[in-house]
Parts: sequence; C-alpha cells; structure tokens
Amino acid sequence: IHTFIATSALHMEKKLRMTPEQVLEQSKLSVRFAKKHCPDVEFSPEDGSRSDVDFLCRVLEAVIKEGATTINVPDTVGYAVPEQFGEFIKRLREKIPNSDKAVWSVHCHNDLGMAVANSLAAVRIGGARQIECTINGLGERAGNTSLEEVVMAIRTRKDFFGLETRIDTTHIVPTSRLVSQITGFVVQPNKAVVGANAFAHASGIHQDGVLKARDTYEIMRAEDVGWSTNKIVLGKLSGRNAFKQRLKELGVELESDDAANKAFQRFKDLADKKAEIFDEDLLALVAQEAGVAAQEHWQLVTMNQASGMGQKPFAKITVLEDGKEKKSESQGDGPVDATFKAIESLAKSGAELLLYSVNAVTQGTESQGEVTVRLAKGGRIVNGVGADTDIVVASAKAYISALNKLESKAQRVNPQYQN
Amino acid sequence: IHTFIATSALHMEKKLRMTPEQVLEQSKLSVRFAKKHCPDVEFSPEDGSRSDVDFLCRVLEAVIKEGATTINVPDTVGYAVPEQFGEFIKRLREKIPNSDKAVWSVHCHNDLGMAVANSLAAVRIGGARQIECTINGLGERAGNTSLEEVVMAIRTRKDFFGLETRIDTTHIVPTSRLVSQITGFVVQPNKAVVGANAFAHASGIHQDGVLKARDTYEIMRAEDVGWSTNKIVLGKLSGRNAFKQRLKELGVELESDDAANKAFQRFKDLADKKAEIFDEDLLALVAQEAGVAAQEHWQLVTMNQASGMGQKPFAKITVLEDGKEKKSESQGDGPVDATFKAIESLAKSGAELLLYSVNAVTQGTESQGEVTVRLAKGGRIVNGVGADTDIVVASAKAYISALNKLESKAQRVNPQYQN
Repeated sequence: IHTFIATSALHMEKKLRMTPEQVLEQSKLSVRFAKKHCPDVEFSPEDGSRSDVDFLCRVLEAVIKEGATTINVPDTVGYAVPEQFGEFIKRLREKIPNSDKAVWSVHCHNDLGMAVANSLAAVRIGGARQIECTINGLGERAGNTSLEEVVMAIRTRKDFFGLETRIDTTHIVPTSRLVSQITGFVVQPNKAVVGANAFAHASGIHQDGVLKARDTYEIMRAEDVGWSTNKIVLGKLSGRNAFKQRLKELGVELESDDAANKAFQRFKDLADKKAEIFDEDLLALVAQEAGVAAQEHWQLVTMNQASGMGQKPFAKITVLEDGKEKKSESQGDGPVDATFKAIESLAKSGAELLLYSVNAVTQGTESQGEVTVRLAKGGRIVNGVGADTDIVVASAKAYISALNKLESKAQRVNPQYQN
Repeated sequence: IHTFIATSALHMEKKLRMTPEQVLEQSKLSVRFAKKHCPDVEFSPEDGSRSDVDFLCRVLEAVIKEGATTINVPDTVGYAVPEQFGEFIKRLREKIPNSDKAVWSVHCHNDLGMAVANSLAAVRIGGARQIECTINGLGERAGNTSLEEVVMAIRTRKDFFGLETRIDTTHIVPTSRLVSQITGFVVQPNKAVVGANAFAHASGIHQDGVLKARDTYEIMRAEDVGWSTNKIVLGKLSGRNAFKQRLKELGVELESDDAANKAFQRFKDLADKKAEIFDEDLLALVAQEAGVAAQEHWQLVTMNQASGMGQKPFAKITVLEDGKEKKSESQGDGPVDATFKAIESLAKSGAELLLYSVNAVTQGTESQGEVTVRLAKGGRIVNGVGADTDIVVASAKAYISALNKLESKAQRVNPQYQN
C-alpha cells in the first residue's frame, strides 16, 4: 500500500490547509492503518524536494517507526537539480536515526528535463535504491523519469554507478512500442534509447567513425535494447508457424488458439495488400487483435469514402450493432471527419474526440497507417487503435474500437478519469 | 570559425589513426589558420568527455595560445553524468594556465537522457558560460541539449544558478512549433516545456491544488514560454487587420503585402470549412504560404480520391507543370498511396519517400491535418508540408511541395545530404 501526503510549507498551507503538526499526525495514522492490511507500506512526502528538511526528517522518522518499509521522496513539480537533490536525499538518510529500516526511493518529474539525472543523483549521492519511473517517460505534464534512460545509464556507466537493475534490456523497445500504441502517445524520433533515430548516425563523420570502430560513437548497442536488426520478416507465402515464431521473438504471446488464428487471418489479408510485412506491421496487427478480443458491441462491416478539392468529403459505412446490420452516410470536413460522423450518426455516443493521431507504421508509400482515437464520455477516457494500409479505414477501425471500449461495462483495474 | 578534432584515445587511434602528438599539432595548425581569417575562433576537442585530462589540458592550452576564443568541450556520445562532467570542466579550467583567455562552452548529447543536466552542471560546477543546444533537442541520434529546457531551468532555478540568459522566453513555443513543422519531427506530448501536455494537469489532486494556488504544482507559467492562453482567435467574419494582428502576436511577420494577401485568402478559404480558427491553424497556414513563396514548378489544381473496404483505393489529380495542365490517375494501397502514385506518374521524380507524418493541428473532428513528406533524391533530402481539413488533400499538397523543393536549383545555405 502506498500512502502519501504533502509536506512542503506551500502545499500544507495552500492546498491541504493543515498545520505541520496535523500533517505529521495524518502521516502516522495513514501508515498505521495501511500496515494493518499489508506488511509492505510505502510512504511519500508529496512535494518532498521543496519541503523543509527538519520537518521532513520528523515525518519520515515517524512513519518508519509506524512500519513504512519504503520511503519515496517525490520531486513533484520537477524543480530539483541533480547534485542538490542527491545531497538532499543523503542528508535525510544521515539525519533520520531509523533510516536504515526502509528502502529509499525517489519519484521525479521532468518539467525542467532533469528527471533522469535527478533520479540517478539520488541513487549515487543519496543512496536511494528504488527509482519510480515510466515507459517512454509518460506521466503528468512533462512526464516522469524514463525507465529506458535510467536502466541504460546504470548499465552503460556501470564504472560510475557500480549497480545493477536486473532488467532484461532487450524488452525495452518492444515495451516502448506497446505503450505508445496503447496510449496513443507518439515517441519522438530523437527520444533517447527508444526513439526511431536513437541509433541512427546521420553525419558523415559519425558514419565514418562507426564503420572503423562502432564504439567511437556508440556507447550502447541497438540490439541490447531490443531493436531488431533484421527488419523484413514475413511475406505473402509465410506460414502459420513462421508467423507464430516471429511473434514469439517479438515477445508477443497470443492468449488462445482462436486469437492466434484470427491474427493469422489478418496477417494474410495484410500480406495480400502489402509485399513485405515488417515487425511494426505485426505489432500493429496484434495490438488491433487484442483490442478486438473484448466482446464487440460495434463491428465494422464495410466502408467507402471519397473526397477531393471542390468536393464535399463523403463517407458511407455499414456496421453491426450487437450483430444487427446498420448503414449510414455522412458528409464532413475531411474524409476522416465524414467517416466519424457517419459512425456517430448510428452510435449516438455523444463522446468527445480528445485525440486523433496517425503514425505511419513503416516507411514507404505502401506503409500501414496506425490511427489512435481517444474519446471521452461521462468522465471516462478510452483509446481505440486501428491499422490499415488505408488511413481512412484505419481511422474507422480506431473509432469503432474506442466506441466498443466505451460500451464495455467491464471495470478496468486502473480506469483513467477526466476531471 | 569553429574547428575541431577528436582527442580521446579511442577516436585518435581507431578513427583518426593519428598519434596524440599529431593531434596536438593539427589542433594548433587549424586554429592558427582560422585565426588568419576571423578573430573569433572556437575549438572543440571531439569526444572530450572521454579524453585523458592531462592530454586535453595540453591541447587546450596550446589552442588558446594560438588565439582560440571559445573552448567547447563536447560529450560527443552522451556518456557523461552531471556531477562528474561539471568537475571535469572545473578541473580543466583550473589546470590550464591561460584558461581565463577563452569562454568555456559545452556541447552535450542526450543518449542517456542527461544532456540538459550535464550542460547545467558544466555551467554551475565547471563555470562554463556557453551551452550549445538545439530547439526541441534535435540532433544526431537521441539529440542534443534542449534549448527550452536549459533556458527555463536557469530562469526557474535562478536561486540556484544565479545566472541569466537574456532570452525572451515567450518565443520558445512558437519557435518550437516552427522547427517541428519545418523538420517534420513531432514533439512528443510529454516533452518538457514545449510538449502539448507540459502544462496540463490531468490528475484530480493536481487540479485541485492548481485551483487553490497555481504554484502548488506549477514552477513555470505557460504564458512565459509562449503558450497562448486564449486559443480561439478568429472566425469566418474576422477581417484582414484582426488576421494580421494575431499573426504579429504569434511572432509571424509576412515578407510582403502580396504574401499577406495570399495568406489572408487561405485563411478565408479555411474559415469557410472550419468554424473556429486556432493559432495552430494560422501557423500551419503561414508555414504553407512560406513554402509556396519559392517559385513553383508543380502546382496542384485539383484532386479527388476514393477508397473503402473491398475497393481498390483510387486517386485522380490535375497539376500544372510550369503552368501547363497535366492529368493522371492511379490506384494504390491506400488513398494517400494512390495520390502519391498519381502525382509521381507525372513527375517521374524517382525520389524515395523517407517519411510520411500526419499531425492533427487542432483537436476535434474538424481539425486541420498537417502532413510532412520527406523525399530523398540523389543524396539530397527535402521536406514538404501541406495542411488541409482533408488529410488526403494535405498529403497531396505536401508531396507537391517536396517535389518543388527537389526541383528548385537554388543552393541552400546549409543543405542536408543523405549518406
């Protein structure tokens, strides 16, 4: 159980409207209560990096006494600078008499671009042994510490940190892609470790150096973080086993034979349209399959659209609603807009479109377009993903997939709400 | 003039195949030569962060003696860790007798996510007074130090750094967008300072805090970096002056009355299709106008496309080539592919499509799509940008714009070549 309360003067006064003594009392009570239900309790003093060090010591000593096993100091607003933050953690650990009874952790935000460096300083200077981080650095505002950067820094600079993470780094890139597909947040090409260009050498000097000796310009190997070197894998003539094998290599295991068969069918359909099937295509195809696994209220049967300059974009769709065929057509500002309006005229979801994003999954004109649609309704936010060589069809699939998620009454483990 | 040569043992031996004495000699010669042509000479010891400190001191002392006015220490492979890198710069400055004769600078890469923190450590611990950085952190591989993050860190943590940059921070976001549009590199939503979510508070706790007192969760104000608070600006009924005024507020000045008139006409056309014109729309519209300013070999007259499930995507286009009308049609894997093939069947450029990217410029179904097309031909790389409420039309515009750039014989100041 993770309990937290803010300990900075600013947060206590303006947000909590509590005195420091009340906050201290509340900290103890929450840990004491959590401890009754679970032996492993984490406590975070919110806005810790801007908290008074003496007060913080009192609070942390008290919660460790109550049984907190992990003390996690957040840099809630991304205000910290590495050396200062590392020294801050060190000071806390030195001043608190029972500090050795807990694992020390940090939780940094990236508002000034230093979340990774701050976390690592907390580890090296401060002696922290847990870093709270996220894939692709996602998180509130400018995001949190990037898992991939922290892991590769500790590994690459083992000489400096003298530590290990026990993470199998070859899963980093596939995981990054999966998260990007599910959330609809693109990874920018120049993102460290997982960006498309992270291992690309564009300048002549660098290329010359790498050809002579890779370590002149490479401190990490692309393979070590899971970039596959052999990009072209499957084609029209590939069989079921080759398909399954490649998915396995990509770290994907389909839940059932039925799911595998459906995915294979989609693969064959795609191979009819597209000569070479890249890893990215397979991942898009499987992500789509996973989305479809939930029971579908809406199913896309067929769609057509047309648009052009001086011509009002137009779309015509046929869907199944709970197995019953329904048709509609609509005009719009563009073919995608017309398609969404046609679907919406049947679905009448009234959902708000928060995000529409297109990624070309592989390069070249015959690439698959992967579309993410984020819808909000009644405070709930869902993402739908669709992939197709036709970007408008991909958009329709994504919209339908999002509608199905809105429809699904199943409670998610961590539902995301809009405020 | 900026001269550089590698000084790390690894680079000297494996890449340059020179002895340290040869490198020392070459460093002196290059600065001596540059100094004859220009009083202001910068010298960089490439892979400086992995160079032997004693050898580096000899090289740097020698080049300062030759007249180098700026000494720029690069962390070429993004290997450095802040505290260590700051101490390294400090040590160099202390050991080199004539170090006070030059401005000290650093050039960091972001391979382990620490470019910003390393640069700032070099400033605070090491006493450097120049940071080489880029907008949106673009650059080789995982990119270079982000200008926006460095500038806002120094400003926000003035208490810690005690320095000023004299940069007008309100230009940061417009500049970031301009660079993103020109290069076709998207800025990920969780990018610090300039990402779409950088100032968005999603969690209920944070929103509650911000409503009570902004500084509980905000260390910077969105306005300070140029996010405009009033997003809706213009509509169908807005006049020429309102249009010009808003552009001026966005930091855009059109070169000529003719350009302003053309941009206004596009604005009116867009306002006919779209109820509300956002700042993003204006910037897209003006970026497009700037692209068209060069003389056009190819002009898009009209286009139509249709696609759907179970239907081969099809596109029909009419273009002017040097004022002469030409028509063509083509099928493709998707409507965009069909459109590109139709254009290519006339242009016969043989160019390779390196990148196809779509950004929804504003949210909502009626948003403008902005498409970037990157083409490579004969070693030259060009980007074309097109915006339209119809993403297939936007794609055609972007492709045509890229073709025109390939066609243009004009030498660019810094042409980009493919290796």
